[in-house]
Amino acid sequence: MRTLILGGDGYLGWPTAMRLAVRGDDVMVVDNYLHRTLARETGSEPLMPTPALLERTSLFRAVSGRDVAVEIGDCTDQSFVDRIVDQFQPDAIVHYAEQPSAPYSMMGHVEAKRTLENNLGTTFAVIWAVMRHAPDCHIVKLGTMGEYGTPNIDIEEGWIDIAHNGRHDRFLYPRQGGSLYHTTKILDTDLLWFYVRTHQLRVTDLMQGPVYGVSTAEADCDERLAPRFHYDDIFGTVLNRFLVQAVAGIPLTVYGSGGQTRGFLNIEDTLQCVELALRTPAPAGDMRIFNQFTERLSVREIARRIADVGNRMGLDVRLTTVANPRLEREEHYYNPRHQGLLNLGLQPRYLTDDVVADLLERVRRHCHAIDTRCVMPRVRWVRE
Amino acid sequence: MRTLILGGDGYLGWPTAMRLAVRGDDVMVVDNYLHRTLARETGSEPLMPTPALLERTSLFRAVSGRDVAVEIGDCTDQSFVDRIVDQFQPDAIVHYAEQPSAPYSMMGHVEAKRTLENNLGTTFAVIWAVMRHAPDCHIVKLGTMGEYGTPNIDIEEGWIDIAHNGRHDRFLYPRQGGSLYHTTKILDTDLLWFYVRTHQLRVTDLMQGPVYGVSTAEADCDERLAPRFHYDDIFGTVLNRFLVQAVAGIPLTVYGSGGQTRGFLNIEDTLQCVELALRTPAPAGDMRIFNQFTERLSVREIARRIADVGNRMGLDVRLTTVANPRLEREEHYYNPRHQGLLNLGLQPRYLTDDVVADLLERVRRHCHAIDTRCVMPRVRWVRE
Repeated sequence: MRTLILGGDGYLGWPTAMRLAVRGDDVMVVDNYLHRTLARETGSEPLMPTPALLERTSLFRAVSGRDVAVEIGDCTDQSFVDRIVDQFQPDAIVHYAEQPSAPYSMMGHVEAKRTLENNLGTTFAVIWAVMRHAPDCHIVKLGTMGEYGTPNIDIEEGWIDIAHNGRHDRFLYPRQGGSLYHTTKILDTDLLWFYVRTHQLRVTDLMQGPVYGVSTAEADCDERLAPRFHYDDIFGTVLNRFLVQAVAGIPLTVYGSGGQTRGFLNIEDTLQCVELALRTPAPAGDMRIFNQFTERLSVREIARRIADVGNRMGLDVRLTTVANPRLEREEHYYNPRHQGLLNLGLQPRYLTDDVVADLLERVRRHCHAIDTRCVMPRVRWVRE
Repeated sequence: MRTLILGGDGYLGWPTAMRLAVRGDDVMVVDNYLHRTLARETGSEPLMPTPALLERTSLFRAVSGRDVAVEIGDCTDQSFVDRIVDQFQPDAIVHYAEQPSAPYSMMGHVEAKRTLENNLGTTFAVIWAVMRHAPDCHIVKLGTMGEYGTPNIDIEEGWIDIAHNGRHDRFLYPRQGGSLYHTTKILDTDLLWFYVRTHQLRVTDLMQGPVYGVSTAEADCDERLAPRFHYDDIFGTVLNRFLVQAVAGIPLTVYGSGGQTRGFLNIEDTLQCVELALRTPAPAGDMRIFNQFTERLSVREIARRIADVGNRMGLDVRLTTVANPRLEREEHYYNPRHQGLLNLGLQPRYLTDDVVADLLERVRRHCHAIDTRCVMPRVRWVRE
């Protein structure tokens, strides 16, 4: 299988590339290092150094004997994406090439515009490159569970049957994201669904929850192959931030009441899900949508779990509450379905104490690199 | 009231400017003549010549004694929109500044990209200019009934209460447009609704159906003040196309079975609706949505009505069916509500035989200018 990974330098892009290469796919990764640029600009460096793509592919070849092709370029540039798709003739494209940070998208006008133009621009260029050069190619698009927001009804997998005044029809499940970043993913969905209808594209939209972990079968061969670990308020996830705070002796900063509940998954499960989606392509003209997570956790539960494990390891972990910089419900109903990927064969793993302990150990080995200035919220959704 | 009209050179923008100026508003129109440029590029000139904005404002001043300020510029240019909003300090912005043609948006990549970037870009720039320079300003955005598509359930006014598995919540009514143009309006809606939630904007979204007519109280003072009349397959509406075909002795080209049903309105009613929306601004933090049309008509009914009136006037009007160049349902359920604007006081007028006869007369006076090459469909939604 020929698989093109857009955003192949990213937290998930690179581990996906290694996994598929080990499975025997012909893999090409494409990236323009936008994420690294934005992280540098915002003082949000990852905890462990991350070699550039060409160095990573050399290291990976040395441990695995597998090649991963690399192209450096901007996926909003239509002529660039056209050339790549035309020449590589992928069976599938995994589209991770988006600005992934909610707080970044809320910093100001420049960041909002960059997020909007990059995310919608890459999706638009991918759609047109596929329509023109590889119309049968399966697009696996990374959406986010955050597109749904926190509605007061059960969250279905992408679609909902609505009965209304004695009639019924099936619609995209209504979406309302909690940041401009999430909103750009909604726009992506609208755009993809339009071209699926008119041009019979094959699309799988993976509505993914927050991912944790840095351990994958391939990354564990050499620490320099590990996925990027961001722990700051802009590019880090809440889980990573808590892990670093636990090690650095800073109270875990719970935003508001901490009742914010999301569907989380281990990075190994992301790799499983993407591979399952790739091995069973969506039919032509179908926009197949899966909710991609394995367990629901609230911010409060995550903080307590990390505190418990950390304290047993001899760390002195405390919790604190900070004013929520985001506009979001802190206590809410949350019942999203996530059956589709289980039906395809997903074997979930969970955030056990062992997983937390392993992550805390890794962070502890790199504790000299922690920059404590970037763990408190620097971006507010609304200015006073 | 200080009212800024973006897209003030357009079919609706210019009549709106005259109406509000006559009412005593301080009116500024902004346009970059994009519509004229695209019409010229696609061989879609209007039937009657349309003077440029500065000439129109001079003519209008001569007949009304009212001034309309003009700024020529691109509303996707943030610094331009910032300057205008900051200096003019509008109480309201009427945002018409979008590429309005569904067929244009389906011509190819260049046209699709231009439509996406222009329409979403203007909306984004307006949002940011308002947030930064006139946060209390009421944004009256022209949406389209086409955002809803043709669902099998009743179409509510923008929002729907969904009961699901014993719980319920209120959502934006699910949208799925029939062209990329319509899809960009959906993206606009998502973007506006996000910033309404986070920044307490005041927004009224007018989900307008196809508009017909060139007669308004102000335009009737001098034919050179008339709204642009496009009758081609790209920028013309189905009604205008049929009027011109009737006069030119070309059979009225019904796309497919002609059962496509939409909600239409007279241009005078558009002016009423916009004025009603302006005089009762949406509260801060509210995205108020009205379905803006006065009567449902199918393509078949419109063709028959124009044929009947035309034949009584001595024209020889016949109907023909052509293969539908669009992807759309030709026979479908269509029951959209449109109560909100009636509640505000809208006095609807309808497409009577007199209105049709008046339009046919006008077209007959300009029949020497009809270019019969541009009335047959030149753009197909899907290429064979």
